[in-house]
Amino acid sequence: MHQLNKLLTISALCSCFASQPLLAQDAPSLHVTDAKQLPKNIIYLIGDGMGPAYTTAYRYYADNPTTRVVEKTIFDQLLVGMSSTYPDDDTYVTDSASSATALATSHKTYNGAISVDHEHNPLSTMLEVAKAQGKLTAVVVTSQINHATPASFLAHNQSRKNYDEIADSYLSNVINGRPIADLMLGGGTRYFVREHRDLTQEFTQLGYQYIDKLSDLNTIKSLPALGLFAPKGLPFALGSEDPLRLATMTHKALELLSDQEAPFVLMVEASQIDWCGHRNDVACAMNEMHDFATTLEHVKTFIDANPDTLLVATADHSTGGLTLGSDGVYQWKGKLLHYVTSLPNAIARAIVDDLTVLDTSATLSTFLAQHIRFNIDAKNLDSLRLQLNSRLTEEKSAKLIEKDLLHFIDKATYTGWTTSGHTAIDVPIFAYGKGQQFFTGHKDNTEIGARLIDIIKAQDGKTK
Amino acid sequence: MHQLNKLLTISALCSCFASQPLLAQDAPSLHVTDAKQLPKNIIYLIGDGMGPAYTTAYRYYADNPTTRVVEKTIFDQLLVGMSSTYPDDDTYVTDSASSATALATSHKTYNGAISVDHEHNPLSTMLEVAKAQGKLTAVVVTSQINHATPASFLAHNQSRKNYDEIADSYLSNVINGRPIADLMLGGGTRYFVREHRDLTQEFTQLGYQYIDKLSDLNTIKSLPALGLFAPKGLPFALGSEDPLRLATMTHKALELLSDQEAPFVLMVEASQIDWCGHRNDVACAMNEMHDFATTLEHVKTFIDANPDTLLVATADHSTGGLTLGSDGVYQWKGKLLHYVTSLPNAIARAIVDDLTVLDTSATLSTFLAQHIRFNIDAKNLDSLRLQLNSRLTEEKSAKLIEKDLLHFIDKATYTGWTTSGHTAIDVPIFAYGKGQQFFTGHKDNTEIGARLIDIIKAQDGKTK
Repeated sequence: MHQLNKLLTISALCSCFASQPLLAQDAPSLHVTDAKQLPKNIIYLIGDGMGPAYTTAYRYYADNPTTRVVEKTIFDQLLVGMSSTYPDDDTYVTDSASSATALATSHKTYNGAISVDHEHNPLSTMLEVAKAQGKLTAVVVTSQINHATPASFLAHNQSRKNYDEIADSYLSNVINGRPIADLMLGGGTRYFVREHRDLTQEFTQLGYQYIDKLSDLNTIKSLPALGLFAPKGLPFALGSEDPLRLATMTHKALELLSDQEAPFVLMVEASQIDWCGHRNDVACAMNEMHDFATTLEHVKTFIDANPDTLLVATADHSTGGLTLGSDGVYQWKGKLLHYVTSLPNAIARAIVDDLTVLDTSATLSTFLAQHIRFNIDAKNLDSLRLQLNSRLTEEKSAKLIEKDLLHFIDKATYTGWTTSGHTAIDVPIFAYGKGQQFFTGHKDNTEIGARLIDIIKAQDGKTK
Repeated sequence: MHQLNKLLTISALCSCFASQPLLAQDAPSLHVTDAKQLPKNIIYLIGDGMGPAYTTAYRYYADNPTTRVVEKTIFDQLLVGMSSTYPDDDTYVTDSASSATALATSHKTYNGAISVDHEHNPLSTMLEVAKAQGKLTAVVVTSQINHATPASFLAHNQSRKNYDEIADSYLSNVINGRPIADLMLGGGTRYFVREHRDLTQEFTQLGYQYIDKLSDLNTIKSLPALGLFAPKGLPFALGSEDPLRLATMTHKALELLSDQEAPFVLMVEASQIDWCGHRNDVACAMNEMHDFATTLEHVKTFIDANPDTLLVATADHSTGGLTLGSDGVYQWKGKLLHYVTSLPNAIARAIVDDLTVLDTSATLSTFLAQHIRFNIDAKNLDSLRLQLNSRLTEEKSAKLIEKDLLHFIDKATYTGWTTSGHTAIDVPIFAYGKGQQFFTGHKDNTEIGARLIDIIKAQDGKTK
């Protein structure tokens, strides 16, 4: 009679993981008999949070409205497969740290880990392998340079949250007395220039040129160099003076790296696609995607001129549960997003700074025309005005107003979101150049890391 | 001052499509110099509504809880690329009719069209091409046999809703006096056996063996044959006596087709993944996915024994905006879905038929233990009971109770949904066997159709 006894308590089924790191499953070693098949240089790009909804969205966002055909994007041109992203943790949903660890070391670990295993032992990263061989190495990101993804290539730490410790370790985690990366471009002065320690000075003492403005990029004439262009992440692309900052930094990195004889390994991360996804801000996301697409185009052009190079790009996971279509309507109006010219977060702060904007439909319409330039009918406009006004008496009104604006944009475009976090969906893999055939079909994220490490290791004899 | 004048009226930007059908963009013809590279037989499978969230979900659903490793599924083994699905219509979100038209004919058309262009002229389907060459042809589906996807391979109609007309046209749309398909298995007696016309009799007169029970499948010893096993679609896999009905029917089809010398083209559709997606019923969907996975395993085994065969599988679009993870939680507990042993729709109807189930927590718990066998804590149980009770005074209470049960399952598993309709996300492509290399990377759905038609046409000389 006690059916309850028959009910399975699912928590009891949780498998308790053994203590060895979960190795790449079925990752066959590369059987390469001819070293000429292997590239000299590797460019590894990660679109943080860039699940397949993002790459699909970008095509329809970028679609030229004057032509009937929907043009293929750089993502379409380079697509070769898809990747699973699950961590070695009690969930199938990864965070960026464990996923980057898998992509950088070929080993899965727990969420939050920076290239360490469950016992906190360091897992060797591909940039460390490359540096030990005497190769040139570089990291270019739009987050702070010690954020989870770049950190997983350059350091080892039991927690991604130990930002200061991770930054410090960029000077202590050395190979032959040298830091792992010859070039680092991104943000992070908040962590590198602290009250009692200035890491940028220590890098300078090691011979690194240090700059703290993106506009000074062209003053870098040789390696090694360090560029930190913001206290934490760089400003979002949407509304930025430098919306193509990732493409610009990557272009510079390729210039500096290819100036030298030695082979190089470059890691580039479009860090903020994920940040937009967490906010459920699709306009923000499409602008990050445009910067990343432009970056990939530069890289492809570089490879066409320097064919002894391999591009591999993927995502660490998807973010937000983004969907193109919502509420039963067979539409996704991504092209409207071109008419969102300011970050909703910034629009919300501007409203809170000048509440007269919400006085009448006319004042709101005039204000919005500077930021959200698609036609809003009178009924929706007034409805929005009343909604925003209602937020003014609540706590954190700017945040709520931002949410309302985001919701408004989602409704206009039929964009759906289900979470402020990550999701478990597989992500695309892109490859181009010499060795691209090793990345096709379905791969686990550890297999991508494993194959790149195999390629780097197989070329040991080629470097001085 | 009139900022409004500057506002772009997006509707004015809508490109008005010219009247020619939108041809496959950049679909290079197959340059095949050696006919030995081309397969004799083609097996084309469509997972209706099966976007990448579904194939990813299936892996984690099917994951063996006693092993640490997450096993690769048949989908992972066969993945070769991804496909865009947009129609030739004023939206990027396709329906099944225009997408199946693209997959069957290589031409895009408007949503709702069954292999006709914007002027309603017929577009030649690959089964028609194959039949004209004297090949054997077969269609196996879990929907009614005249539903949008199979219809787009067998017929031409300006609207998918003309079910009776489409069914009739299976007898009038002939090649050399014969219907297009030598074998059809699915549902649809509602349309085939009507008051004033019995199409099954007319098929019988043409020499088709006709059966109307799935359990009679083995009475079919030779072609041609017609099997219609339900008034419309077959019962859902979840809770069915024949949860592997698609695999069973496909196995039978391959037996009958391979018994003959002539080459064959077989189209198989897992029709109901989409139907579950429309209902936002993830347990339903995983059971359909399991039937489709089993079907693909059979097909792969067939090809290993009959290597002069090509498998191509894809989806027409994704459905529901399914996400694995929701509400900020980094979890997707798909394995719980094994403990949902009845369709939520059926559970709801059972509750409405016996309201005493909702009397107390104990009665509800006892009842649910037969259908949703995972542990539900007392608080959630009582909350659910009150919620369900509150529906009893509303109209369409069974439907509302079903929605509440679905919502409950979604909360327990962290499954997200954003729509009851379709979404625009790209879908996976799978291929195996001879000629699989023609389907790799990113393809538009028309390119998949175009390449298959090229392969079929290139073999014309090989058939008598």
